[in-house]
Amino acid sequence: MSHTKKFMLPDSQMPTHWYNIVADMPNKPLPPLHPGTKQPARKEDFLPIFCPSIIDQEMSTERWIEIPGEVQDAYKIWRCTPLVRAFELEKALGTPAKIYYKNEGVSPAGSHKPNSAIPQAYYNKKDGVQRLTTETGAGQWGSALAMACKLFNIDLKVFMVKVSYHQKPYRKLMMNTWGAEVNASPSLLTESGRAILAKDPDAPGNLGIAISEAVEMAVKTPGTKYSLGSVLNHVLLHQTIIGLEAIEQFKLAGDFPDMVFGCFGGGSNFSGSAFPFVHLNLTEGKKVRAIACEPASCPKLTRGEFQYDFGDSQGLTPLLPMYTLGHDFQPASIHAGGLRYHGAGSVVSQLLKDNLIEAMSIPQIETFEAGMLFAATEGIIPAPESTHAIAGTIREAMKCKEEGKEKTLFFNLSGQGMIDLYAYEQYMEGNLVNYNLPDSVIRESLDKLEKIIR
Amino acid sequence: MSHTKKFMLPDSQMPTHWYNIVADMPNKPLPPLHPGTKQPARKEDFLPIFCPSIIDQEMSTERWIEIPGEVQDAYKIWRCTPLVRAFELEKALGTPAKIYYKNEGVSPAGSHKPNSAIPQAYYNKKDGVQRLTTETGAGQWGSALAMACKLFNIDLKVFMVKVSYHQKPYRKLMMNTWGAEVNASPSLLTESGRAILAKDPDAPGNLGIAISEAVEMAVKTPGTKYSLGSVLNHVLLHQTIIGLEAIEQFKLAGDFPDMVFGCFGGGSNFSGSAFPFVHLNLTEGKKVRAIACEPASCPKLTRGEFQYDFGDSQGLTPLLPMYTLGHDFQPASIHAGGLRYHGAGSVVSQLLKDNLIEAMSIPQIETFEAGMLFAATEGIIPAPESTHAIAGTIREAMKCKEEGKEKTLFFNLSGQGMIDLYAYEQYMEGNLVNYNLPDSVIRESLDKLEKIIR
Repeated sequence: MSHTKKFMLPDSQMPTHWYNIVADMPNKPLPPLHPGTKQPARKEDFLPIFCPSIIDQEMSTERWIEIPGEVQDAYKIWRCTPLVRAFELEKALGTPAKIYYKNEGVSPAGSHKPNSAIPQAYYNKKDGVQRLTTETGAGQWGSALAMACKLFNIDLKVFMVKVSYHQKPYRKLMMNTWGAEVNASPSLLTESGRAILAKDPDAPGNLGIAISEAVEMAVKTPGTKYSLGSVLNHVLLHQTIIGLEAIEQFKLAGDFPDMVFGCFGGGSNFSGSAFPFVHLNLTEGKKVRAIACEPASCPKLTRGEFQYDFGDSQGLTPLLPMYTLGHDFQPASIHAGGLRYHGAGSVVSQLLKDNLIEAMSIPQIETFEAGMLFAATEGIIPAPESTHAIAGTIREAMKCKEEGKEKTLFFNLSGQGMIDLYAYEQYMEGNLVNYNLPDSVIRESLDKLEKIIR
Repeated sequence: MSHTKKFMLPDSQMPTHWYNIVADMPNKPLPPLHPGTKQPARKEDFLPIFCPSIIDQEMSTERWIEIPGEVQDAYKIWRCTPLVRAFELEKALGTPAKIYYKNEGVSPAGSHKPNSAIPQAYYNKKDGVQRLTTETGAGQWGSALAMACKLFNIDLKVFMVKVSYHQKPYRKLMMNTWGAEVNASPSLLTESGRAILAKDPDAPGNLGIAISEAVEMAVKTPGTKYSLGSVLNHVLLHQTIIGLEAIEQFKLAGDFPDMVFGCFGGGSNFSGSAFPFVHLNLTEGKKVRAIACEPASCPKLTRGEFQYDFGDSQGLTPLLPMYTLGHDFQPASIHAGGLRYHGAGSVVSQLLKDNLIEAMSIPQIETFEAGMLFAATEGIIPAPESTHAIAGTIREAMKCKEEGKEKTLFFNLSGQGMIDLYAYEQYMEGNLVNYNLPDSVIRESLDKLEKIIR
């Protein structure tokens, strides 16, 4: 006799609105500051970078924001994503905990990133934008936006972090197949890129530098806007489709999570999974613990400081209030390229400061061990980013075993790892290392950071 | 206002039985023959190759065969797969036809192949087998079986066609990640491989040779059996889960197909999609046309002959009655590696002979054009094999446009193309060619084939 393992919503029961957590935050996030004047940024300050619809959404304090019909239609290519009970993983761990995961890897680009790429392409098209620029780390965001731009018929230029560009040639080809132009960053195409290369011609790049390049090109090219795959509130907003679906799916399962785990780079995957549950904490007295799982080598949430910092490496973006390691922090070349980012979005940072969410950091080898166990038991090879959420969940499941507690744990499998198999090869050959940063390295990076509003 | 695009079955409504078309065939397939005696093969003849449960299933004439609970549970990791209305593709073609596809690419291995890999691993484990051998072309079958063997804790040795082994390094890594050993075929590990390499050290390999190697190793190694990913009836049987789900999903859509398209290598994907509809033709008077879409460079159904032939290149398997190009036919190095096979299964061949199914052949470049259009409109990059079904569907949709007919067309998207992006790069760079075989080449290969039962 077979049991129910998976819970799905029919198209007719899909969420029709995104959830904007700003409406419910007891302390609203501090405003972004204009990088020149250091005054709170106004809508006009963002206009060179983003289209008007996106800026309105970024600044909105409405709780529920309607998902346009065209976006709902595109979501339905693969959404709702399955909520799956990980019976075999539970068995392998011998834990009394119940483990559920949501499989965002079934999207055409292989991750949760299309959840925001599609509305961003849609709104830019609506506002008459002809071309988008963006950055990508591991390539998940770039390929998602390439797909979305193809669907909505906009051009796309991608700056891909150089270390990933070489590690993941298939990611580049995926973007090309969807019609995007891909450049390794730092590149010679922008002043920002040239400045970095002048100092170090072999610079491996990072998300901060790639953002600088993409923003610079958008600002300087007519008909062109920039698109960001994480950090900002409109991105987090779009990603709430994950948690909103999950809440309905848990009703079908007759269960409800005690803890939610998401991997953490800039915040899009964690926030999308967790915010709808935090909403229930804030409005219905639920007590779901939301845990952001970040790499030990890039520990802004657990070891960074809360202060104003730039979103990019070169200081082109507005200043954002964030937990940060300093905008010129150079993350180690871990395989979870999508988590190699120095800061966290303002909304997530404020929530962490107010103890409404939590964070843990996990060393690289532990995350791959978790990924291998997941592949062996549940059959899916996870993206290296996603293994952070699995590792966090496994830590808690083992604690449940020690303590004999039957908690319900939920994590978001942000993507599948088919394009990241080189990383698994490195793990299997014993070539992976943990990057344990001495405090002095983090201190040094933070000390360089100007305390702008003090 | 958003419309319903996708149709899914909840776990509780998943099919619990596979459909065995042999029960309904007006002319049963001719029996396989022992390669030595040329007499109909008995169960004992298969025992060196397959485990008893699989042989029983291969020979069964029962109409409905129950899916074991453990297999149903593993299916539920990703099944049911979405049935999706391709509104955007329809719009791009300007066709009055309605187009639906079933997305088998959402499986953990990226294709429909786990549908048979999982039950094969399950039955072999149940029968006490410790190790399986298999062949793989593009790598879809090998990676599916690697996943299944990991889930059911059996060792696996894979012989991967050499041309694909080099074109698709990620496929090899995927199998390694699930714990399988992978060897390029022809290899030095078997007499069959050594014989080929002696004649041509640079032989690119093909499915027929890889099968010879895998069968030879299974026969010669204690505790070891062989597993095949297509052609045989038990494989086609397992794949009927696709069409059985689709029939229920079409009920949810309030629609029903006039034509079903599947790509054709050995028959597993086409048969799995089409047989449940052919069942309705045979028992309920429906008139669904089932079209097998094969590569023009490997045209056994449209240009081969119906006769007894070996399943492998070296003549180790039982003789099967099949449409074939001759077992030493060397298919061109097209990118749809999974379709590079000289013959068709006995059941499919008999059905084609009896005009209960149809076939068409499609040149390589047309299939990639179809794949690019599908990626641009529906957002999913298809496996090169699957593009054959898309191209076949597009041909018919354009005919509907010319004739002003509103048919309902259904194709199976057998897999996603993330690991096949090298092939798309070759297409985009204009390096692909069509292989138009002169009749003499096919004639020559067929003439060499001994007419054993005449």
